[in-house]
Amino acid sequence: MKKYLAEMVGTMVLVLMGCGVAVSLNCTSDCSTVANAGTVIGTALAFGLSVVAMAYTIGGISGCHINPAITLGVWLSKRMSTKDALMYMLFQVIGAIIGAAILYGLSNAGTGLEGNGLGANGLQTTAAGSTVSVCAGLLAEIVFTCVFVLVVLGATSKTNGATNNFAGLAIGLSLVLVHLVCIRYTGTSVNPARSIGPALFAGGDALCQLWIFIVGPFVGAILSALIWKVIAPKED
Amino acid sequence: MKKYLAEMVGTMVLVLMGCGVAVSLNCTSDCSTVANAGTVIGTALAFGLSVVAMAYTIGGISGCHINPAITLGVWLSKRMSTKDALMYMLFQVIGAIIGAAILYGLSNAGTGLEGNGLGANGLQTTAAGSTVSVCAGLLAEIVFTCVFVLVVLGATSKTNGATNNFAGLAIGLSLVLVHLVCIRYTGTSVNPARSIGPALFAGGDALCQLWIFIVGPFVGAILSALIWKVIAPKED
Amino acid sequence: MKKYLAEMVGTMVLVLMGCGVAVSLNCTSDCSTVANAGTVIGTALAFGLSVVAMAYTIGGISGCHINPAITLGVWLSKRMSTKDALMYMLFQVIGAIIGAAILYGLSNAGTGLEGNGLGANGLQTTAAGSTVSVCAGLLAEIVFTCVFVLVVLGATSKTNGATNNFAGLAIGLSLVLVHLVCIRYTGTSVNPARSIGPALFAGGDALCQLWIFIVGPFVGAILSALIWKVIAPKED
Amino acid sequence: MKKYLAEMVGTMVLVLMGCGVAVSLNCTSDCSTVANAGTVIGTALAFGLSVVAMAYTIGGISGCHINPAITLGVWLSKRMSTKDALMYMLFQVIGAIIGAAILYGLSNAGTGLEGNGLGANGLQTTAAGSTVSVCAGLLAEIVFTCVFVLVVLGATSKTNGATNNFAGLAIGLSLVLVHLVCIRYTGTSVNPARSIGPALFAGGDALCQLWIFIVGPFVGAILSALIWKVIAPKED
Repeated sequence: MKKYLAEMVGTMVLVLMGCGVAVSLNCTSDCSTVANAGTVIGTALAFGLSVVAMAYTIGGISGCHINPAITLGVWLSKRMSTKDALMYMLFQVIGAIIGAAILYGLSNAGTGLEGNGLGANGLQTTAAGSTVSVCAGLLAEIVFTCVFVLVVLGATSKTNGATNNFAGLAIGLSLVLVHLVCIRYTGTSVNPARSIGPALFAGGDALCQLWIFIVGPFVGAILSALIWKVIAPKED
Repeated sequence: MKKYLAEMVGTMVLVLMGCGVAVSLNCTSDCSTVANAGTVIGTALAFGLSVVAMAYTIGGISGCHINPAITLGVWLSKRMSTKDALMYMLFQVIGAIIGAAILYGLSNAGTGLEGNGLGANGLQTTAAGSTVSVCAGLLAEIVFTCVFVLVVLGATSKTNGATNNFAGLAIGLSLVLVHLVCIRYTGTSVNPARSIGPALFAGGDALCQLWIFIVGPFVGAILSALIWKVIAPKED
Repeated sequence: MKKYLAEMVGTMVLVLMGCGVAVSLNCTSDCSTVANAGTVIGTALAFGLSVVAMAYTIGGISGCHINPAITLGVWLSKRMSTKDALMYMLFQVIGAIIGAAILYGLSNAGTGLEGNGLGANGLQTTAAGSTVSVCAGLLAEIVFTCVFVLVVLGATSKTNGATNNFAGLAIGLSLVLVHLVCIRYTGTSVNPARSIGPALFAGGDALCQLWIFIVGPFVGAILSALIWKVIAPKED
Repeated sequence: MKKYLAEMVGTMVLVLMGCGVAVSLNCTSDCSTVANAGTVIGTALAFGLSVVAMAYTIGGISGCHINPAITLGVWLSKRMSTKDALMYMLFQVIGAIIGAAILYGLSNAGTGLEGNGLGANGLQTTAAGSTVSVCAGLLAEIVFTCVFVLVVLGATSKTNGATNNFAGLAIGLSLVLVHLVCIRYTGTSVNPARSIGPALFAGGDALCQLWIFIVGPFVGAILSALIWKVIAPKED
């Protein structure tokens, strides 16, 4: 049970801090701010450093997935039981909702941030006025989740990092990387739980497009499990 | 005694460097600069890297708390004696005052920075002119200190990092994260000593609102000790 | 074979993510954006963190060169066979082309990024309108590849890091450093494969100037193998 | 002899890359760019990551001082012989001059960067037109070198990091920190060799004010050796 609670707390922190920085730095779906490299870098750092922080906080308890796509990839790689995988996903979603709720409460406690988007994911609009297509958004989520989960599977494998403690840092920095490239397309989910939490409070487009951020990351995770199977040493 | 002096030196460095960068990059309470992602990122890095630097400098001497809220959390988790906890807090506050004094002296030695706010904490004013409410400021300090101290308790526990030397890096990067989100609300304290030092020299609102940055971090630390107790493995 | 495939996947990720961030942050050859420190920092982080990510993902499989210049340096230092060196380079180029193809497909799937430069390398034009000379561009690639490959040879030597797992982090951060300084001159290649991939899709100047980004990095790698031979301890 | 050459190469890289990024990002003495947080962060990262890169490249050969102030601090702490200390300083200065020469040659090879300041140190001018006083500049160099060398002495002591390989990362990140705060005052030296190299090519104020960047760092190093003596455990 402790490991499920740890996943809940970890995902709560990820959503609270990652989406919280998107709100504080005003890195929303608005096209003009997406063009601002500083807000993108700050938000990317926030999601990545949340993973670094949680990896060294709850890593020894649950392994610190805090992302249903990672849990799917790990389960497909036969490193965890089906029951654990389902429970992990459940508690991750609960944690994400709690994290979004805290952020919603804080923003509405008199901060001048009332009514902002809570860092919810969605197809971005560019300065020129065009919106990223559903096809491109889905493709971006698939491709970048695939890269991200591949790093997770590799860095925690026996071959590379299972025993050297660098995995948490490498995985967190990979999430910085994924956000740097993908915020321009969808705000970056690569994590269904992270999208579900804020969408419930933001409503509107965030809810309508939520399926993209569930289907995309899961397909990406399946792809990366396949790629890892091909390149992983046999003894792994 | 050496460990108390180490805490004093470490907190001095934290305030001198963290608040010093806030001053150098002009990341003050002024609403227009708070909107500048670059100054926020630079200041966030400064506080976090100060902790990384000190963790590997005095970590082997005192454990490098350099923050009364951390000391409270560690004491509540029964990892240090009451006497040590009180002495740590005392020397942390002394160090913070020395750090703020050095920064005050440097700023007034002919730098064009005379009369700046010394990086003191306070409820921030937004570009639209509204000021963050006391309620929101206190809530932000409680929530983000809770996240920060949770990382400290987890990363230094037997379960996770007591023996792997990654704790200093993880905790420092967590402080970067906390500043990225919280500068928008209060300039980010999560550390009563860090707030007391500059407030003595800045005066005005910094002194009037100082209670927020003592009560908030301490409440947050208590919360995180409770959360860690729930999710920590029994053998920890 | 698995190690060749790992090099292919790693180089694919490097090009996809590094060039992908250059595209997302609009850090192209255009002089006005090169003047923007934020886009340069974000792009520099992207290339460096791609190396960090891949080092801990495929490092245990292939050593994670993902760069023909590194492979040349390692081969000159007699740490790998001639056959492996050639196969590494071949699969690196294939991976780079795949990475550029994915980025090309994504950009053209309805993102408002159609027709951008795909992060291809080229002599940069300054705000004042002057273009970096061929001589300066070649010199920059030689000098900065030399620094980069020197870090690779040193950090993976027995003397320094062969056993401490820090090499991946140090090498990745060195690539951040190299990009910070060199984007101003050529967009930064220091890696023939990374230049070949996008050039095939971007065409024009990127193809005409491609020789600079093959000759320069290879000459730089030869230089660094010589320097390392001079300063390396005998037992290394 | 190899260790002296390693110091020369390391200091060459530090000056070439650190000052090179200051030039590329246009982070010069000019007041308007000093106000730009992005160029300051990029330049700070460059100096710090140069140290990280060199620490894991030549750390096993010479200990990677690449800074006469560090060598003074280490010598005062009785961890190296007088002869080695003098030879280290000599080769550091030679390396710095070579690094500045390469940067000078590159800038003048047709880049549109001819006549820039080569990242030389000097008392900065603020947007409001006032110049930092000699007193403030000297004070800044003393204080921030003291903090930096303290981290070096602590992180490489037996108590903290002599055996855990984190020292290179912690020291490099500390140099990022020092630059974030100090570029506003003097462009940040904390290293006489780093100031001597560019000053020889830049001339003018850089040469006239050079004494500040020799006296300041050396006084700071003496102070930090004293502080470390006070707080270091006896067995260290």
